[in-house]
Amino acid sequence: MSAPGPTAPVQLAALPDPFKLWKGGELHGAQIAYESWGKLNAERSNAILLFTGLSPSSHARSTPENPEPGWWQNMIGPGRALDTDHWFVICVNSLGSCFGSTGPASVDPATGRSYRLTFPELSVEDIARAGYEAARTLGIEKLDTVIGASLGGMVVVAFAAAVPHGARRLVSISGSPGALPFAIALRSVQREAITSDPAWNNGNYADTAQHPRTGMRLARKLGTITYRSAEEWRMRFGRNGLSPTGRKAVKQALERQPAGFGPRFDVEGYLEAQAERFVRVFDPNCYLYLSRAMDCFDLADHGAPVEVMRRAGLESALVIGVESDLLFTIREQSDIATMLDEAGVPTRFAKLTSIEGHDAFLVDLPNFDREIRRFLEA
Amino acid sequence: MSAPGPTAPVQLAALPDPFKLWKGGELHGAQIAYESWGKLNAERSNAILLFTGLSPSSHARSTPENPEPGWWQNMIGPGRALDTDHWFVICVNSLGSCFGSTGPASVDPATGRSYRLTFPELSVEDIARAGYEAARTLGIEKLDTVIGASLGGMVVVAFAAAVPHGARRLVSISGSPGALPFAIALRSVQREAITSDPAWNNGNYADTAQHPRTGMRLARKLGTITYRSAEEWRMRFGRNGLSPTGRKAVKQALERQPAGFGPRFDVEGYLEAQAERFVRVFDPNCYLYLSRAMDCFDLADHGAPVEVMRRAGLESALVIGVESDLLFTIREQSDIATMLDEAGVPTRFAKLTSIEGHDAFLVDLPNFDREIRRFLEA
Repeated sequence: MSAPGPTAPVQLAALPDPFKLWKGGELHGAQIAYESWGKLNAERSNAILLFTGLSPSSHARSTPENPEPGWWQNMIGPGRALDTDHWFVICVNSLGSCFGSTGPASVDPATGRSYRLTFPELSVEDIARAGYEAARTLGIEKLDTVIGASLGGMVVVAFAAAVPHGARRLVSISGSPGALPFAIALRSVQREAITSDPAWNNGNYADTAQHPRTGMRLARKLGTITYRSAEEWRMRFGRNGLSPTGRKAVKQALERQPAGFGPRFDVEGYLEAQAERFVRVFDPNCYLYLSRAMDCFDLADHGAPVEVMRRAGLESALVIGVESDLLFTIREQSDIATMLDEAGVPTRFAKLTSIEGHDAFLVDLPNFDREIRRFLEA
Repeated sequence: MSAPGPTAPVQLAALPDPFKLWKGGELHGAQIAYESWGKLNAERSNAILLFTGLSPSSHARSTPENPEPGWWQNMIGPGRALDTDHWFVICVNSLGSCFGSTGPASVDPATGRSYRLTFPELSVEDIARAGYEAARTLGIEKLDTVIGASLGGMVVVAFAAAVPHGARRLVSISGSPGALPFAIALRSVQREAITSDPAWNNGNYADTAQHPRTGMRLARKLGTITYRSAEEWRMRFGRNGLSPTGRKAVKQALERQPAGFGPRFDVEGYLEAQAERFVRVFDPNCYLYLSRAMDCFDLADHGAPVEVMRRAGLESALVIGVESDLLFTIREQSDIATMLDEAGVPTRFAKLTSIEGHDAFLVDLPNFDREIRRFLEA
């Protein structure tokens, strides 16, 4: 199996060996892929640790080694919200993912073969702790700020619980203190699409060309639908027929499906393009592990949430939520802000009216830039 | 192929032969299954024609022949909102469906074999006209009221365009004047789940036992997710583990999927039960045809919507929408009400705050009862 490795040079941090997982089991020789921007100061006090959503790599911004734009290109850099003239920004590929960090697609040193489903159960807490341990390899014992959006927003909440006093400040964007049934239901259908694809073969698919592509395509299309809002799509696609770009994207789909049921509308071409891009790079077993970890995260597992947050040693927090977010509801953001507030952590809750839904942090940059810049400068 | 026929005795109305379809093609010997309650008066002026959503049969209420409760059991009957002491209520199984009406699962008289994908392209307009022709076989030239919810809500809008002066009044519930990209995207993923299931076999699956069950299960689960609201599910399921009922429902699913990725939460048991029930009764090709018809419906195909409604000959209208509906947005309901209003049709727009989302018409009966009763009695 060709474990989809990092697509371009990244740094690698060795995790403590063994690395014990939150729900049992341990990893040997595990590592975390990361990239960084800016310069760590002498006191090692200016570090920001950034966690990603489910699918991105550590490539949040271009680097000399990889000039491709990153997934938060315009939020990081000199003069940007995460100002690299002042901050040392580290973005980690999540434990369990497939872009250089150890996960189900990695080789188990005990057997010399890929873990696949022998990988122990992954928790959001493990992603948080692995990110912290990666920072420690750089001599950083305390982060100035941990930031994350989507899965990353969950991770920073887990970070506060699992790594008390590991950071001075926290920024949770469109995260959750515990997944709700609507999101769990959607993810369970995504996983079932993959596990019921015969090519999945109980996790033992051969190489990328023999991935359970059908299941992965369906899972990604469904994800894509829930990342935006119905209103944004109405404005963007309306009832337009396939655009020339869309027509190109669906060429294969039209060959696969009888014309009557295949793509006709522009929005279908968009889904097709998103799915194809994803299927080429993401490992199906990693997807399953990360997806299930999101369902199972529950801050309450650590005790009464307000008490947990009181013990976290935070000096301040910023919680950003988007009212049109279907997947991580505004109520969950408000719950995070309230528990921090009740724990005595000075907290700003920014409730944004962006129409881009869950994806707003990737699109509505002026609002996110303003909120994060103001918070970091405080 | 065992075309899933009516599950219990229904009446059959022969459609005009040939029955020409809106987008071309024609059917021979086509029929519509219907059930009725109440008594047609001598003037044949007290008939209400009820159209269903995508999946129900004509069994809206129990009958002497079939005492099973119907899908709108408590809305129809003596003293109910659709008061059968006064009204003669007819509910039709949609053209293209599989509960007695002609559809892709029916036998094509020209070949003696099931239509399957040789069935001509189905439109929402055809469903409207076929329902009207079924009423005409009872000597009814003009309905007092046409009512429909979900797909049925689209059908009554199409009815106004395709059968001008066919009804005095119209009640559209959670319908649409033209599907929007969010709903189109969801349906396209549902269809792809079915057409990419190898058992679908380009529409040539054998019998019910060899249906593309995986694809149908995924399609129904995804549908079920979009029929309610995240808030209602939060209150109903929270993060509860599998209930005993849920555990029973997922028994097979647990056998199919490795425990790590199979159902753990109550909401997953619910999805499982819904999917199993659906897969047993609904024909996959019929599902594909009805689903695509919903995407392609656009009132604008008939001309400027206000002009179309002006020509419909309506005396009044009631449009009911639910703010938490993800699939048929409140904006679409407001658009329907506005166009009727601008066409000079006295229209009441009831904007309900039910938390049950698209399914509210099946659950929040007090509000629907009140609105429909008041309208019909006016």
